[in-house]
Amino acid sequence: MRRSRAFIPTSKEAPSDASLPSHIFLSRAGFITQVAAGLYNYLPLAKRVIKKIEAIINEEMTKVGAQEVELSFVTPADLWAESGRIEKFGKELLRFKDRKNNLFVLGPTHEEMMVDLVRNRVTSYKNLPLNLYQIKTKFRDEARPRFGLMRGREFIMKDGYSFHADTEDLDREFDAMEVAYKKILTRLGLDFRVVEADSGAIGGSGSKELMVLADSGEDTIAVCSKCEYGANIEAAKRSRRSNIPEAPEAEFNKFLTPNVKSIDELAEFFKVDPYYTVKCVAKRVIYEDESEIVLFFVRGCDNLQEVKAVNATDALDIVDVSEEELREIGLEPGFIGPLDQDKAKHVIDSDLKSAKNLICGANEADNHFIGVDLGILDDVAYFAEIAEVNEGDICPNCDGELSFTKGIEVGHIFKLGTTYSSALKAEFLDENGKSQPFIMGTYGMGVSRLVAAVIEQHHDDNGCKWTKATAPYMVNIMVSNIKDEAQVELGEKLYGQLQESGVEVMIDDRKERFGFKMKDAELIGFPYTVIIGKELANGQVQIYNRQTTEKTAVAADDIYAKIMEIL
Amino acid sequence: MRRSRAFIPTSKEAPSDASLPSHIFLSRAGFITQVAAGLYNYLPLAKRVIKKIEAIINEEMTKVGAQEVELSFVTPADLWAESGRIEKFGKELLRFKDRKNNLFVLGPTHEEMMVDLVRNRVTSYKNLPLNLYQIKTKFRDEARPRFGLMRGREFIMKDGYSFHADTEDLDREFDAMEVAYKKILTRLGLDFRVVEADSGAIGGSGSKELMVLADSGEDTIAVCSKCEYGANIEAAKRSRRSNIPEAPEAEFNKFLTPNVKSIDELAEFFKVDPYYTVKCVAKRVIYEDESEIVLFFVRGCDNLQEVKAVNATDALDIVDVSEEELREIGLEPGFIGPLDQDKAKHVIDSDLKSAKNLICGANEADNHFIGVDLGILDDVAYFAEIAEVNEGDICPNCDGELSFTKGIEVGHIFKLGTTYSSALKAEFLDENGKSQPFIMGTYGMGVSRLVAAVIEQHHDDNGCKWTKATAPYMVNIMVSNIKDEAQVELGEKLYGQLQESGVEVMIDDRKERFGFKMKDAELIGFPYTVIIGKELANGQVQIYNRQTTEKTAVAADDIYAKIMEIL
Repeated sequence: MRRSRAFIPTSKEAPSDASLPSHIFLSRAGFITQVAAGLYNYLPLAKRVIKKIEAIINEEMTKVGAQEVELSFVTPADLWAESGRIEKFGKELLRFKDRKNNLFVLGPTHEEMMVDLVRNRVTSYKNLPLNLYQIKTKFRDEARPRFGLMRGREFIMKDGYSFHADTEDLDREFDAMEVAYKKILTRLGLDFRVVEADSGAIGGSGSKELMVLADSGEDTIAVCSKCEYGANIEAAKRSRRSNIPEAPEAEFNKFLTPNVKSIDELAEFFKVDPYYTVKCVAKRVIYEDESEIVLFFVRGCDNLQEVKAVNATDALDIVDVSEEELREIGLEPGFIGPLDQDKAKHVIDSDLKSAKNLICGANEADNHFIGVDLGILDDVAYFAEIAEVNEGDICPNCDGELSFTKGIEVGHIFKLGTTYSSALKAEFLDENGKSQPFIMGTYGMGVSRLVAAVIEQHHDDNGCKWTKATAPYMVNIMVSNIKDEAQVELGEKLYGQLQESGVEVMIDDRKERFGFKMKDAELIGFPYTVIIGKELANGQVQIYNRQTTEKTAVAADDIYAKIMEIL
Repeated sequence: MRRSRAFIPTSKEAPSDASLPSHIFLSRAGFITQVAAGLYNYLPLAKRVIKKIEAIINEEMTKVGAQEVELSFVTPADLWAESGRIEKFGKELLRFKDRKNNLFVLGPTHEEMMVDLVRNRVTSYKNLPLNLYQIKTKFRDEARPRFGLMRGREFIMKDGYSFHADTEDLDREFDAMEVAYKKILTRLGLDFRVVEADSGAIGGSGSKELMVLADSGEDTIAVCSKCEYGANIEAAKRSRRSNIPEAPEAEFNKFLTPNVKSIDELAEFFKVDPYYTVKCVAKRVIYEDESEIVLFFVRGCDNLQEVKAVNATDALDIVDVSEEELREIGLEPGFIGPLDQDKAKHVIDSDLKSAKNLICGANEADNHFIGVDLGILDDVAYFAEIAEVNEGDICPNCDGELSFTKGIEVGHIFKLGTTYSSALKAEFLDENGKSQPFIMGTYGMGVSRLVAAVIEQHHDDNGCKWTKATAPYMVNIMVSNIKDEAQVELGEKLYGQLQESGVEVMIDDRKERFGFKMKDAELIGFPYTVIIGKELANGQVQIYNRQTTEKTAVAADDIYAKIMEIL
């Protein structure tokens, strides 16, 4: 492609709301333009990147026997009513009526559609397993679309769905998909980690996320220093804490603690480690048809993990509550404890099960209990894992310590089980001729998000650094001075040679200053730029390596051979 | 691909509303399933066909320098207000509000979006021409979605848009796109014709349609017997009629014609050829904000061409009117003529300009004028070409005769001019530093419709006959009896060999009867099926050619070489 003819509207200005490198550089380098909040156009460079990612996904999916389909983007709301998700999905599910007043939904994911496609068309265990996928535009009416391609409303996703006769076969497919997903990310040149994930909202028996490691990631991941264990903070577990402080000794007693409300104040007041205090986090828990205040108790040194709290209460969501709301139902903010707690439903973190030597609120203004043994609640209270792991906690799989890192979720694989097949009555006849709902798995990968993730992981202050597998063009030929006949001649010759060799090459043939063109090349991020400049008079050109930002002098006569060698 | 693992839900039953072969066979052969009216899923076989078509389009577009983009499918209604099309497009334009109450439109075509993308990003004649295209899902909320993929609501379209500094350059691009489109259809193996088209609704200075010839086509095309001329009936012209009957001689007079209302009755009553009578077609003409009754006068032997009538009146649409409506404004149905016509606006067909010896209604019950010379209206009435050409009329370009054939519109190329760039104020600086609106062209091709068009042109009573360029798999290996080890062995060997040679091959390894599997193969329409059956005992297999339906015996040892030779 000739740069003079290419539609690559580069710019010095980034969008005013852009904070992430990918948002800034993809916009500035002419890969994307914004249409409205969360809606983007992919310009020629971005389209090339997307097609490369799609091709790699297609290849790896074909290798594992998955078959590509393309389902209608506009989906009948009836199906969403059948599964019950039309309510659960909330406002993210964009609904509209057609000219005949039928209700439709813009597909944010296609579980219902896929189950509807397969039901009554696959009827025997003999035709299982089946793995169908598509790569297509999706739409989620996000409340806060942001970060460019990272969290758009319209986005491109690879979504796959598998159907099985038994859970063993689902397990096999799930593992195969994990391997395939890893291959895809490895081929794309990404540094990533497969982590345990929360399987809350969609339901199901297990799930893993593929996280591209990047400082700007929205997700916090707990990773082990010794073994392969990694988990989204929402799902991370620990075997135990690293250092358990010595227990304070005290008889059970009620103690006057005027105005001592926070954990810090409490620990200071009694000179104990917060580990031995009980923190109450009160939340309003939202269910499908109603909501209520629930008290979550964790150790004072821990924090409530909200996703775990949602799962523990089987809620749609949890939100904050005000002190007024607590007082209205007879609770005393700052002094709420789990003993004799009859004002509100409560959940106690598993780590507090049978815990002794605790200090907790006495459910009475300015009073705490000390010397509490929660063992008395073991058989009567609801214990669940609701605390977030901390850095330094011990790995659940070995004796390594957990530390936190940031990741961008680009893939999610999921054992769905029969959630959707049961709801939509999608069944097959098993070997005994008995009707059974399909056992399902689902496998998503964010294609447009991957475009951004590559840049989050591969950039510097001057712009993008595309990996070899994702670069829109591999080589950029920079004719420094378009009026210099020798430079033009060599540039055009090399351009022709590389094109013939099947190399994706661009030639910058614009009548612009060298400095301007070079800044453009860095911003766009071609892996290699051949600089044909003044040194050509001495038979020399340079290769600029965008990854290392190093320039290497090469004899002009050898440049074609050298480039081919590098590639 | 193994047939036993492939998701190809073939069926004996066609959808109850299916009348076209493509709708019937694509459904029965497991290529598509219907989701709702006009909404379809593309199953693995169809997805393969679509990708082949897309790849050919991409190749030909790249060759002519067009650049691929992908624009947001959800488009802001503001842009449609700017161009004025939010009203004009009517209910086909699906609108909805997002969670923040902003109005959006599901893109049925992307002129506004593309102009918005280019405006302020291409600012100089130096960066022109520019040709951008995408292949993406579109949505039109058709009043009567029908014929399967032929007229769906959600469909896949290649839409391209070019930007130029002057009309000469647009003409050059338009011609280049015509050549490219012809190459695409030729490569797909289609018999087609490029025809002159109406450029009415979108506005612009010229357009051509690419018509795949098929009896089931919705469009009527007039083609010349001698030269290359072809035109959609909506736009077809004639130089003259083939045989003009002898003129009746009569002085101008009013004549009592009791109850003689139709052209047939009139011609019979006066014993003249209908050529010399004047037919009145009254219609209600719909404009953006109002409507009115307009009288269209054509020769009695002609028919009103409604698209021409719409264009002549600059209307959005025209609809029928009742006799009551005509009487309400003082017209006398059956006796309406163009002389002294002051009751309603009227348009007279150009062929009646200066016409003599006519008989027409006298605007009075039971009366006609005879010996009418319409020359007296030449300077006062509105003449326009509103009659439809007839078979046998003489070609506008040579002395050949026109005949009619049926076509499926699969492409439309269009000189838009400045319609959209002016409306959206998309301008560039010309060589003299003067601001000018872009001169634009637009180029559409129906990708999902092409899938159907291939089958409309290539099928028989037993199913699909894919062309080589569009076949989802080129070769089907039929292992007649899966329990016969020798058959299985040869089948598997050939399957492996062909796969290694890069041939798209399927092996029918199902435990089903030969007859059942063969019917399936015919329905799906693989170009070649290798039948490995009983004759293998004598060292023979057969190649079934789906196009010719002939079976050829081949020595089993030579089958691989023979297949490679055929391909």
